[in-house]
Amino acid sequence: MVKAMTALDDVRTDPPATVGVGQAALRDQNLAVVATLAFAADEPVSRAAIAAASGLTRSTVSRLVDELLAGGVLRELPRQVAGRGRPATPLAPARGTLVGLGLEVSPSYLGARLVDLSGDVVAERVLPAHLERSDAPEVLGRLGRLAAHVLAESADDWTALAGVRLAVPGLVDSAGRVLRAPNLGWREVSPTDHLDAAALAVAGGHSGPPPAVGVGNEADFAALAHALDAPGRPAGSANFFYVSADIGIGGACVVDGVPARGRHGWAGEIGHTLVDPAGPQCTCGARGCLEQYAGRDALLAAAGLDLETTAEALARAARTPGRAQEAVAQAGRALGVAISNVVNLIDVDDVVLGGQFVPLVPALRPALEEELRRRVLAAPWLDVTLRPGEGGLPALTGAAFAALGDVVAGPSAWLQVA
Amino acid sequence: MVKAMTALDDVRTDPPATVGVGQAALRDQNLAVVATLAFAADEPVSRAAIAAASGLTRSTVSRLVDELLAGGVLRELPRQVAGRGRPATPLAPARGTLVGLGLEVSPSYLGARLVDLSGDVVAERVLPAHLERSDAPEVLGRLGRLAAHVLAESADDWTALAGVRLAVPGLVDSAGRVLRAPNLGWREVSPTDHLDAAALAVAGGHSGPPPAVGVGNEADFAALAHALDAPGRPAGSANFFYVSADIGIGGACVVDGVPARGRHGWAGEIGHTLVDPAGPQCTCGARGCLEQYAGRDALLAAAGLDLETTAEALARAARTPGRAQEAVAQAGRALGVAISNVVNLIDVDDVVLGGQFVPLVPALRPALEEELRRRVLAAPWLDVTLRPGEGGLPALTGAAFAALGDVVAGPSAWLQVA
Repeated sequence: MVKAMTALDDVRTDPPATVGVGQAALRDQNLAVVATLAFAADEPVSRAAIAAASGLTRSTVSRLVDELLAGGVLRELPRQVAGRGRPATPLAPARGTLVGLGLEVSPSYLGARLVDLSGDVVAERVLPAHLERSDAPEVLGRLGRLAAHVLAESADDWTALAGVRLAVPGLVDSAGRVLRAPNLGWREVSPTDHLDAAALAVAGGHSGPPPAVGVGNEADFAALAHALDAPGRPAGSANFFYVSADIGIGGACVVDGVPARGRHGWAGEIGHTLVDPAGPQCTCGARGCLEQYAGRDALLAAAGLDLETTAEALARAARTPGRAQEAVAQAGRALGVAISNVVNLIDVDDVVLGGQFVPLVPALRPALEEELRRRVLAAPWLDVTLRPGEGGLPALTGAAFAALGDVVAGPSAWLQVA
Repeated sequence: MVKAMTALDDVRTDPPATVGVGQAALRDQNLAVVATLAFAADEPVSRAAIAAASGLTRSTVSRLVDELLAGGVLRELPRQVAGRGRPATPLAPARGTLVGLGLEVSPSYLGARLVDLSGDVVAERVLPAHLERSDAPEVLGRLGRLAAHVLAESADDWTALAGVRLAVPGLVDSAGRVLRAPNLGWREVSPTDHLDAAALAVAGGHSGPPPAVGVGNEADFAALAHALDAPGRPAGSANFFYVSADIGIGGACVVDGVPARGRHGWAGEIGHTLVDPAGPQCTCGARGCLEQYAGRDALLAAAGLDLETTAEALARAARTPGRAQEAVAQAGRALGVAISNVVNLIDVDDVVLGGQFVPLVPALRPALEEELRRRVLAAPWLDVTLRPGEGGLPALTGAAFAALGDVVAGPSAWLQVA
């Protein structure tokens, strides 16, 4: 439940307190409460519904909603006459105003996706590439130009860039530094040194301060896209483990709708679970990691297929007996070992297989489920659900949602901008 | 920060609300706030300090403290003159009043430990046994008699039995049913069917209702004993992974001082991490699990030692080259694989090795740390601390602390009893 902040932040039983909270802070917090409620709703909501849910008066809510409408955070839909009483004006997240930019460096592509507050994709570009052992400044320079292009070509369709998030397949520290991205060959890279936020800000031709650029783990962003239907709007699943597969394999444990990132933000790294100590050498330096069985290149090599083969084509090849079918079954067993560990350690029963695994889920399932039955200690009492994730590069969407999440959580900062 | 509950649970900015909360509920909640603050403090606290920390008035705090003193939840220490001002009367958890009973069924012993609110052990009995493939009703009957004996022999040293918690090395569901305890050979056992709470209640000769009997995972209780110095009092470590080792190996991830038990309460099961798919058969049904390398019997067998050998004797034997040293190094490598997985998945950097591992930590450390350096993805930037846990059967203490935690969290229920 979202609660409105009030002047009484330290309430007492006996004499009424007179603890002061500035009027400006109070307004900012209440704007956030109203925005959060309006964004979280499955369907457009009325001012009255927001008042009821927040505990704020209807006059306060109306005043705050007016600010959010004027600022391009919310929009009004046509009035509806529902049952008796005065017709209510439904409110919904604004369209084509503030946008979030999701960026991604993957071993096999560069991507930029611009999303508005309603969750609609305003523009996007994805550039196939081979970035396995790439030069970070050069790659980030290219990504910056791609992003500027996306912003410029869609400039008429939005009003202000709220924020930018970059997804990378690796460990990112709290300062936004990529400590290690084995499948890019990157080590201790600060992407913001090479991505020009000021250039991004002017690329769309709009005025305003340079947007905040954040950097995060690709699997965390992909998991966030699975947890949300749109910025600030929870999807059906709030507790699941997300496996993100490309050449490398990442993961994220989502608890109550939020990726549980751990003490330093490095949680969820399922890709280096030991599958066999006698297994092949991994890019991380160890032997027999999950990636060496279920990562894209490992899978395609075991299947005897060209490394450019799509996951869909591999899934088709795996329908008939042969090397492809054996390779996918082996990947399923390896994934089963790793996911059994996750279930035993974290006690989660909903597993989402994303990225390249999406079309492969039916082919992976038999061996994977057999391993779960064998290795999950609670298997007889626990029904672990395996589901495919969304296609379409979800980390880009999650990164844009994360940038827009700042607007929902603190809209007042954007009311001056828009 | 602990906050007092007030009559305003849904505060508003505009007109003052008149939401009613019953006076009795308010008193109960405020008693809990006062008790929680008094128990959490490292040193005895004054009424004034509780008032300052809770936001309650000094007169309210004094009235509540009087109830907790009369009910045997708190006690007063001699007055102290500290600096200027009126001398304060320090308050501390009571001694020798309400007690919690921790019980444990391990594959190698039965235990009962009675602990008072100050954390002192009032009485205990531990009975060595061989319970690897045991009959649950018979074992629980024996444990009940042991517990009754402990209660009866110490009856003069306490006033009321607040609660009972039973620790078992296995999966326990939310109804307190042991679904599976592979190293006891138990499956779908309801211990409370075989432990007579009414008999325990009268065993000490004190009146009062039968105590609540709870059942939980052994590693969770052992981890709780590591997280707390005494009932309700946090120890220094609030975020760590606890590995509990006997014949089997369990674990618990403690986050902010509380074992993160997962969706069904089954989290932390590190003992069945795959170490080698070609490894020996495990009691769980799978192959090559951690327990088969680092569990007590597996370790002693690999060392060529009698299965009655203590961990201390094994640690001494491992000081010189030979089978014992090799077996411990192999266990260290296996533990390193499993703990690397935990660190990669959960991002925790403080690992406590408990149970039989306590005296073995120096011998386990070299191989274990080598594996962490190899397998933890964040190893170059992360200093994983490995520490021995407490000796002395910590699950018994944690179980008793858990029972007494109910008193701290809801003392009003006990004020009528004592």
